[in-house]
Amino acid sequence: MLFIVGNREDGKALKEEVESRGVPAWYVELWGNYIVVTPPHARVEGLKTPVKAVVELKTEYQLVAREWKRDPTPVLIGDKEMREGRLFIIAGPCSVETEEQVLKTAHFVKNAGADALRGGAFKPRTSPYTFQGLGEAGLKLLAKAREETGLPITTELMDPEDMPPVVKYADAVQLGARNMQNFTLLKKLGRAGRPVLLKRGFGNTIEEWFLAAEYIALHGNGGIVLVERGIRTFDKTLRFTLDVGAIAYAKQHAHLPVIGDPSHPAGDRRYVIPLALAILAAGADGLIVEVHPDPDRAWSDAKQQLTFDQFTELVQKARELARALGKS
Amino acid sequence: MLFIVGNREDGKALKEEVESRGVPAWYVELWGNYIVVTPPHARVEGLKTPVKAVVELKTEYQLVAREWKRDPTPVLIGDKEMREGRLFIIAGPCSVETEEQVLKTAHFVKNAGADALRGGAFKPRTSPYTFQGLGEAGLKLLAKAREETGLPITTELMDPEDMPPVVKYADAVQLGARNMQNFTLLKKLGRAGRPVLLKRGFGNTIEEWFLAAEYIALHGNGGIVLVERGIRTFDKTLRFTLDVGAIAYAKQHAHLPVIGDPSHPAGDRRYVIPLALAILAAGADGLIVEVHPDPDRAWSDAKQQLTFDQFTELVQKARELARALGKS
Amino acid sequence: MLFIVGNREDGKALKEEVESRGVPAWYVELWGNYIVVTPPHARVEGLKTPVKAVVELKTEYQLVAREWKRDPTPVLIGDKEMREGRLFIIAGPCSVETEEQVLKTAHFVKNAGADALRGGAFKPRTSPYTFQGLGEAGLKLLAKAREETGLPITTELMDPEDMPPVVKYADAVQLGARNMQNFTLLKKLGRAGRPVLLKRGFGNTIEEWFLAAEYIALHGNGGIVLVERGIRTFDKTLRFTLDVGAIAYAKQHAHLPVIGDPSHPAGDRRYVIPLALAILAAGADGLIVEVHPDPDRAWSDAKQQLTFDQFTELVQKARELARALGKS
Amino acid sequence: MLFIVGNREDGKALKEEVESRGVPAWYVELWGNYIVVTPPHARVEGLKTPVKAVVELKTEYQLVAREWKRDPTPVLIGDKEMREGRLFIIAGPCSVETEEQVLKTAHFVKNAGADALRGGAFKPRTSPYTFQGLGEAGLKLLAKAREETGLPITTELMDPEDMPPVVKYADAVQLGARNMQNFTLLKKLGRAGRPVLLKRGFGNTIEEWFLAAEYIALHGNGGIVLVERGIRTFDKTLRFTLDVGAIAYAKQHAHLPVIGDPSHPAGDRRYVIPLALAILAAGADGLIVEVHPDPDRAWSDAKQQLTFDQFTELVQKARELARALGKS
Repeated sequence: MLFIVGNREDGKALKEEVESRGVPAWYVELWGNYIVVTPPHARVEGLKTPVKAVVELKTEYQLVAREWKRDPTPVLIGDKEMREGRLFIIAGPCSVETEEQVLKTAHFVKNAGADALRGGAFKPRTSPYTFQGLGEAGLKLLAKAREETGLPITTELMDPEDMPPVVKYADAVQLGARNMQNFTLLKKLGRAGRPVLLKRGFGNTIEEWFLAAEYIALHGNGGIVLVERGIRTFDKTLRFTLDVGAIAYAKQHAHLPVIGDPSHPAGDRRYVIPLALAILAAGADGLIVEVHPDPDRAWSDAKQQLTFDQFTELVQKARELARALGKS
Repeated sequence: MLFIVGNREDGKALKEEVESRGVPAWYVELWGNYIVVTPPHARVEGLKTPVKAVVELKTEYQLVAREWKRDPTPVLIGDKEMREGRLFIIAGPCSVETEEQVLKTAHFVKNAGADALRGGAFKPRTSPYTFQGLGEAGLKLLAKAREETGLPITTELMDPEDMPPVVKYADAVQLGARNMQNFTLLKKLGRAGRPVLLKRGFGNTIEEWFLAAEYIALHGNGGIVLVERGIRTFDKTLRFTLDVGAIAYAKQHAHLPVIGDPSHPAGDRRYVIPLALAILAAGADGLIVEVHPDPDRAWSDAKQQLTFDQFTELVQKARELARALGKS
Repeated sequence: MLFIVGNREDGKALKEEVESRGVPAWYVELWGNYIVVTPPHARVEGLKTPVKAVVELKTEYQLVAREWKRDPTPVLIGDKEMREGRLFIIAGPCSVETEEQVLKTAHFVKNAGADALRGGAFKPRTSPYTFQGLGEAGLKLLAKAREETGLPITTELMDPEDMPPVVKYADAVQLGARNMQNFTLLKKLGRAGRPVLLKRGFGNTIEEWFLAAEYIALHGNGGIVLVERGIRTFDKTLRFTLDVGAIAYAKQHAHLPVIGDPSHPAGDRRYVIPLALAILAAGADGLIVEVHPDPDRAWSDAKQQLTFDQFTELVQKARELARALGKS
Repeated sequence: MLFIVGNREDGKALKEEVESRGVPAWYVELWGNYIVVTPPHARVEGLKTPVKAVVELKTEYQLVAREWKRDPTPVLIGDKEMREGRLFIIAGPCSVETEEQVLKTAHFVKNAGADALRGGAFKPRTSPYTFQGLGEAGLKLLAKAREETGLPITTELMDPEDMPPVVKYADAVQLGARNMQNFTLLKKLGRAGRPVLLKRGFGNTIEEWFLAAEYIALHGNGGIVLVERGIRTFDKTLRFTLDVGAIAYAKQHAHLPVIGDPSHPAGDRRYVIPLALAILAAGADGLIVEVHPDPDRAWSDAKQQLTFDQFTELVQKARELARALGKS
């Protein structure tokens, strides 16, 4: 259950009162609310601390549910606001490779209309024998690109030990699909002080995705963006199966922004633009897409990164589509 | 391989010549071409019959491949043309139930902008204990609706024995997902003289879908529409996982029209409109959608059929989206 | 609901009585019982016709449920009985190719300990360009093999039109995975007068498999064998994912014999023996396995058919395992 | 490539020589071998350092491949050896709850024939609102159970920060399915000095499972046990789909021990025994199974934990099966 109280003092008092009944309780300040949280099936009645509202949901996820918070939550990435009704585009290379590559891409995507720059410095790789990322050196190149272009930057965090440099350099932290149920990392991101782009695991249900977001929120961080990036299915024609149904569902049942990654499900740049448009038409608030100055020579994901020309085409089509859908 | 020849006589002659070499061959007239077909990996050289063009593909599917026929194939349903660059909407109830229900729906969807009316008279049902359809009586109600509204009608065929009445009444024949690899039926539809809406099986790959189309084409019928309607995956939040990647892929690799069914993957009318828009944004040429005057009382698929108001909203949004995508 | 009555007259009378209340009813004689069946959720009370027992189940499937018929149902294939507690092995080539191939295989598997011979005459093929089977000529070769070896034969039926020859020659009819929800064919097999080997569709749930069996039983045929043959999943290392959980579940919830096909999920003969043993250890009553005198030159499924030596090894290991599991 | 050299000095020298050519190289001592490893597709020729053998594989995984190391690798858990040809049973509760619960279970499974005790102290839970484990207090209870019974203990590690206590108390470390691609943790387990039970992720392919093992081996730890525990598929009748094909494949293509977890795929204790037997029949070297003194009151996984009586039955059947399969 969620107990909305009037101020921090009441929150702390209520948490103690609930715990004195033997029921676990958490206190969080999120989205302008003072909230005491108990497990969804716990029943606590006859409390003395004044409460403004009590929310009882049928779902296991609570804080992120749109059922009690009807207004959509905006998330600030650097100085750019991602919110319902607006198109937000994050673009950049799969991996940070060289200064030239990053700066060239950053300038290009900025001019083409991107809102933020993405780039991987710590890379989760299936094989230990493939390029694992430049590490902190990569973060510094991203920071330089931000300095030159003004674009906020987003990058993936894999190891809790890398939290300090990532938080230092990045405006938003990406949590990769393979770590969506790394509960240790989720809890730590709850205290990171940076918004989190929470990619859905390719083997995870929508409810598990929401519950991963719930972990982050329950540990204090309300800046969460849900990212659909395709799931594993029996069909291997494309790399993953983009689940636009998950986007439609997430927009109706969570109050967080939802964006889509068309690059990973496509696995081939020929299919990225139609998937990107499908993501937006399903109701997403934005895109995160891979762009590279010379994709065929990229150090990772060479087949799926867009060329600059393709990115220009994508932005133009996405903007027209967004207008038709009533977005700015 | 495909051998494009100049006329029917050359076609028949070439088929004989190829067969005399011990290689199986078929002769078909499709999309304005005279074509002799051999299995994809067969090699036949030094033929005497004059040939205009030889097509050698790396895929197992041949006739339906866009690689040799770059111009998109239009399909005529009644007097309405489904083709690339235009939005085609087929709408109507899951099952034909009563005269009033069918006529009311037909008039409504006609006025709202539908191009054709759908309705099931022979219903494939998982359980033998659920409503199996009105049979030929249902077909007659559909025919009456066509008479009154001028809308062409589409309906599902399940049993080869029902081919005569279905072909008599319907402008296009739907082949259901569970029958996509009913090769007997595919061959018979190749000689049906009616266009076929070929639904993708929920457990079938894109290649298998193309090969099912190839069966129909190889048996003489070029009027094939590919219909994506969702696949089975581990996530059961929605009824099926709509595979927009399959739509994007099919548009690039087959020359046939591709449409999407948002009703079955949604499984719940709340998600039908965003899925429908995603289908179009991914590149589809149209929609087939379930609409019912009083969905909660429908005899089948009660949860997923759209109300009239929702259908009106869908058509309006679909038209705006289509315009933004450059379609008429 | 199931109403068990004392004789045929009562059955016919009860069916009429139930229908007079506006509830659909079927009358079947199965497994020594006279049964009137109504849809699972229909409630009919205060009936006058004498009834021995009323069965009300929570499942959609009724006739095949073990919940009301605790004793396992044996199925007679030719003169061989498949039943719980005994190991039944069906073996033979994927496709019937030549007289020599069929006879050689039949003699070999007979001597090695097989209970029945399998062989495909009508082949469901994904591509129209691959070998489609010898048809009735293939059936005649199978019949000859039966004559020479005494082994009962099983073969697949695809087209309802082929029912007469298949029923004439075969001791049991196989329904292929792609036709598991071909409801037309299921109904016809209900009246075929031959036991049916009902393969689970690779995209179908266990409940759908049981309901396909229910179609056959409800149309009068109680000789049904459930065959698990692997499902489609994201992992493509082997051809399909053998679902031993489905075998364990089917043995507990249906009273029909359950066997497994290790050849199709393996897709490669190196994995057939361990999969076959896993099938038996999960509780199956037998195996259906592909064997060929010279698999590498087989006209279909070349990689997965066992050599004669491997089949001998399989039978020996399967018999030892069966003994350890308390089977004869 | 793998370069097998004669001693540590040659190993270090060769690593340097290879790196001087600009090719990444690792040096590991594993399974009695001195090995220099390069990425699978790197080609290095004309080396001066003496080399005993060069292994060039077509797979991305190298160290764990059975292709070069035909003899199966045994793994020592405490003083018990897990190895091919022997049945190894790990049993115990899902979560460590109380001293009484752990000790009672430990004594029981010891007497019933278990080789090691499992128990979760740090629990990965989908929801933040469910029991997260006793933490280090739980480890101490496990250690006490070991003291009393002599059984080695295995427990899951989730957070790299918990490595010191886990390594201090546990004889083997379990890596959970959700962390199979937590590459940070994999690398750290490579230096843990304890054998690792590597559970396959429910959304991961067999190749990814092998590559996760490769991460651990490449970072120095050769004590790796592959654990199949079911994958996510469209069928939800049981909790997961146990993939016995993966066991058969892993036994042929990796030299590591392979065991199976029947509890998680079953999700219900009624199906655990048949799944356990199928695991063994497919070729696995052992089982890891959940047992609880009073499963219905367990704090987690209540439905799937075996009762003591069921565990006794399982061990007896497993031993008979193992004997039939030629195992001790």
